[in-house]
Amino acid sequence: MKISDLAVLIKGAVEGDNDINITSLSGIGSAGEGDLTFALDEKKLSQAEKSRSSCVLTTLAMRTSTKPLIRVHNPKLAFLISYRILYPLEPSTSFIHSSAVVASSVKFGNNVCIGAQVSIEGHVTIGDNVIIESGCVIKGKCFIGDSCHLYPRVVLYQNSVLKRNVILHAGVVVGCDGFGYVKDQETIYKFPQLGKVIIEENVEIGANTSIDRGSLDDTVIGANSKIDNLCHIAHNVKIGRNVIMAAQCGIAGSVVIGDNVTMSGQVAVIDNVTIGKNATIGGKSGIIGNIDDGAVMWGLPARPLAQTKRQMALLFWLTKNFSILSKMVKEKA
Amino acid sequence: MKISDLAVLIKGAVEGDNDINITSLSGIGSAGEGDLTFALDEKKLSQAEKSRSSCVLTTLAMRTSTKPLIRVHNPKLAFLISYRILYPLEPSTSFIHSSAVVASSVKFGNNVCIGAQVSIEGHVTIGDNVIIESGCVIKGKCFIGDSCHLYPRVVLYQNSVLKRNVILHAGVVVGCDGFGYVKDQETIYKFPQLGKVIIEENVEIGANTSIDRGSLDDTVIGANSKIDNLCHIAHNVKIGRNVIMAAQCGIAGSVVIGDNVTMSGQVAVIDNVTIGKNATIGGKSGIIGNIDDGAVMWGLPARPLAQTKRQMALLFWLTKNFSILSKMVKEKA
Amino acid sequence: MKISDLAVLIKGAVEGDNDINITSLSGIGSAGEGDLTFALDEKKLSQAEKSRSSCVLTTLAMRTSTKPLIRVHNPKLAFLISYRILYPLEPSTSFIHSSAVVASSVKFGNNVCIGAQVSIEGHVTIGDNVIIESGCVIKGKCFIGDSCHLYPRVVLYQNSVLKRNVILHAGVVVGCDGFGYVKDQETIYKFPQLGKVIIEENVEIGANTSIDRGSLDDTVIGANSKIDNLCHIAHNVKIGRNVIMAAQCGIAGSVVIGDNVTMSGQVAVIDNVTIGKNATIGGKSGIIGNIDDGAVMWGLPARPLAQTKRQMALLFWLTKNFSILSKMVKEKA
Repeated sequence: MKISDLAVLIKGAVEGDNDINITSLSGIGSAGEGDLTFALDEKKLSQAEKSRSSCVLTTLAMRTSTKPLIRVHNPKLAFLISYRILYPLEPSTSFIHSSAVVASSVKFGNNVCIGAQVSIEGHVTIGDNVIIESGCVIKGKCFIGDSCHLYPRVVLYQNSVLKRNVILHAGVVVGCDGFGYVKDQETIYKFPQLGKVIIEENVEIGANTSIDRGSLDDTVIGANSKIDNLCHIAHNVKIGRNVIMAAQCGIAGSVVIGDNVTMSGQVAVIDNVTIGKNATIGGKSGIIGNIDDGAVMWGLPARPLAQTKRQMALLFWLTKNFSILSKMVKEKA
Repeated sequence: MKISDLAVLIKGAVEGDNDINITSLSGIGSAGEGDLTFALDEKKLSQAEKSRSSCVLTTLAMRTSTKPLIRVHNPKLAFLISYRILYPLEPSTSFIHSSAVVASSVKFGNNVCIGAQVSIEGHVTIGDNVIIESGCVIKGKCFIGDSCHLYPRVVLYQNSVLKRNVILHAGVVVGCDGFGYVKDQETIYKFPQLGKVIIEENVEIGANTSIDRGSLDDTVIGANSKIDNLCHIAHNVKIGRNVIMAAQCGIAGSVVIGDNVTMSGQVAVIDNVTIGKNATIGGKSGIIGNIDDGAVMWGLPARPLAQTKRQMALLFWLTKNFSILSKMVKEKA
Repeated sequence: MKISDLAVLIKGAVEGDNDINITSLSGIGSAGEGDLTFALDEKKLSQAEKSRSSCVLTTLAMRTSTKPLIRVHNPKLAFLISYRILYPLEPSTSFIHSSAVVASSVKFGNNVCIGAQVSIEGHVTIGDNVIIESGCVIKGKCFIGDSCHLYPRVVLYQNSVLKRNVILHAGVVVGCDGFGYVKDQETIYKFPQLGKVIIEENVEIGANTSIDRGSLDDTVIGANSKIDNLCHIAHNVKIGRNVIMAAQCGIAGSVVIGDNVTMSGQVAVIDNVTIGKNATIGGKSGIIGNIDDGAVMWGLPARPLAQTKRQMALLFWLTKNFSILSKMVKEKA
């Protein structure tokens, strides 16, 4: 494809030879001839110039280059769209592997692919263009919306609901029992876990993450939210829209997370708190109370980022001045 | 079922119309007509009164209500028992799915259900009323006691022992090799992992948790203990009875955890320490030494809760008074 | 086997009756007659003397004993080698279970074992002496080197490369999509994840760990490195040789970890930093910047161990002397 043709599709402006052909995409480090790459800053552009790439997507404000450029508003987004243009998704054709075990009451949409060794129990409903890869287990009465993609060995417990275009990576478990017990005297009883999990459209969930079903209420993951690998979402949690949650976060029972919250890795949130919309939580934070809308928090326990940084600076200053402090305290004592 | 009849079974006292019928259970938020719900405090009772629920389980001391009440000693426990009464477990009938691969030397009790795509290797013993769901892999010589329930895709390595009534959720791995190596010069050798995992009766283990086999000794999970999702239990760990461990905790090798210990989420315990019985460990704590019986600990490293709270208050006070402190230190220097 | 014969093979010196026979190995706690055990210190030797073990591997410098000893340079290593001598690995014979689903384009080496319910997609290459246990899913174009062992329910996404002698425990996911998105206005787009995972020789990876494929570059795990259960390795991470990473660590995108780094459990590393070779990171640390070669770090955020310990001591001192400090500040204010 000529870069001039690509530029039209991604709403960019070519600078250099319009007739250069690109055949593939790659990162700067491994770019070869015919490859389109992208550079967000001057350092990356210099690297791209030393590579064998044929064309570089870059910002409107970037300096000129010895390489052909396509200037766009958002080079990373343009790269992504270029990828879709060069490698369009092939429409899948209906296919159920002969080793799959599918209950007769399962309802299928069009163009559904079911891999080897899949097990689908009774009264499951599956939309159009769904891919369920090898080794997945779908228990009874689940609903899987259009264009969902379940990678190998995903498990859905009963009644789980996936709206359209949900991606679940390998090993994800949806709808397992929440951690609810009643103690009476010396005995620990298991509390009934009767709710379900509802995952709204365009959600992606990383490998080996587990999402508990609600106990009496439901657990809900809002539309467009992205959850990374090995996270734990407990029963009755409500996650809003456009939430970004990095790997290994743990959200305890009945937590409410507002829209557009961003959470770095290994954050823990205590049960029953609310994290306001647009909040940002630094990695490894421990949230032990409600968080205001738009707050930027970090630490154990999490405090406003500026305060946590001040505390860290203070500790550093104190250790440096310890001998003086110590002398003062001794004199006063 | 009439609430007067239910009240007899759960040892409660009806207040209101004895003849009201209940047909189902639910939380206050979603309670409809015919539903039994429960309220532990006045606020919840007020919510229940606004709902369409037909009857509310509540405490002996609660105020009177416009709704029919059943007063009991422990409403949550009574709710749980009511659930069992309204939805009795159907006895399973023996069933081995035709796609399961079961070695001829496997011994089965009565009423065993084996789901699709299950693989059970040689010399495994399975008790009565066991359910092994789709996609589980049971390696050789395992023992699975009466009434165990293995959800989809559980893996048991060789020689794993589950006593009666153990519940393992999807993706649990029991008996994988511990993390044991011997360094010599530049080379890292794998140390033999020869022990097994023993899980005592009434234990429940959450999705995608892993429990290592012992290296030379065994790893043991005591009776009635409950372990949440995504926990890591290393080789040779001994967990006592009635231990509650929330999600994503990591217990290093040869740790001993006493009876009735409660651990919130994302706690880490260094190898070879002992946590005394009845101890309580706050979320995200890092345990780096032995913990006394009954201690209440929190922090990184974990210290008695009161001390950790004092340190946090102190840090807050210090940052507030930093300018004064700084002046004092400068004058003294 | 006579201990004199064993001593020759492990380059040790017998002290006591050369003709004693050993038939098995065990830890001191469970040692019976005919068992070889090992003791690294006097306390353990005393325990061994009270056991029924027939022979004790110990150091060159250890005191004499009532038990027959074999003195060696590294008793733990000698124990491991003795284990291999007494329990040699039986050569597997080629075997593909009839329930496995294997694409016709898969290339097999010699002596390959494929368990029940395995699924192997097109154009996979498998070396000699490979074991792939029940329920594994190998997606297209993967390469599995000689002597690799995949425990049950491992998933390899497309293009994953395992060099020789790699061990993957149950539930491991290799090659899942990295957590990469582009935000534009209100919309979150999934960034293409085109790279692969390369795992070099002699690597062992623990249960339910996930390793993301590279986005544009590759994710690489260096030779001889050992990664424990439930770790998360993000896209484009480069892990060096001989790295030891304990359970539940999380390594964010594009991190570089040098050779011989040792990391305790639940460490988190922020994206794009470099951890110098031979560094040691304490448990639960949060790494938020580059780490020098050979550094010993601990804390959140991680600082040199001595500094973190000094801060902890300081906090303790401050809480103890708070009333004096408080008085001083009040007088000065």
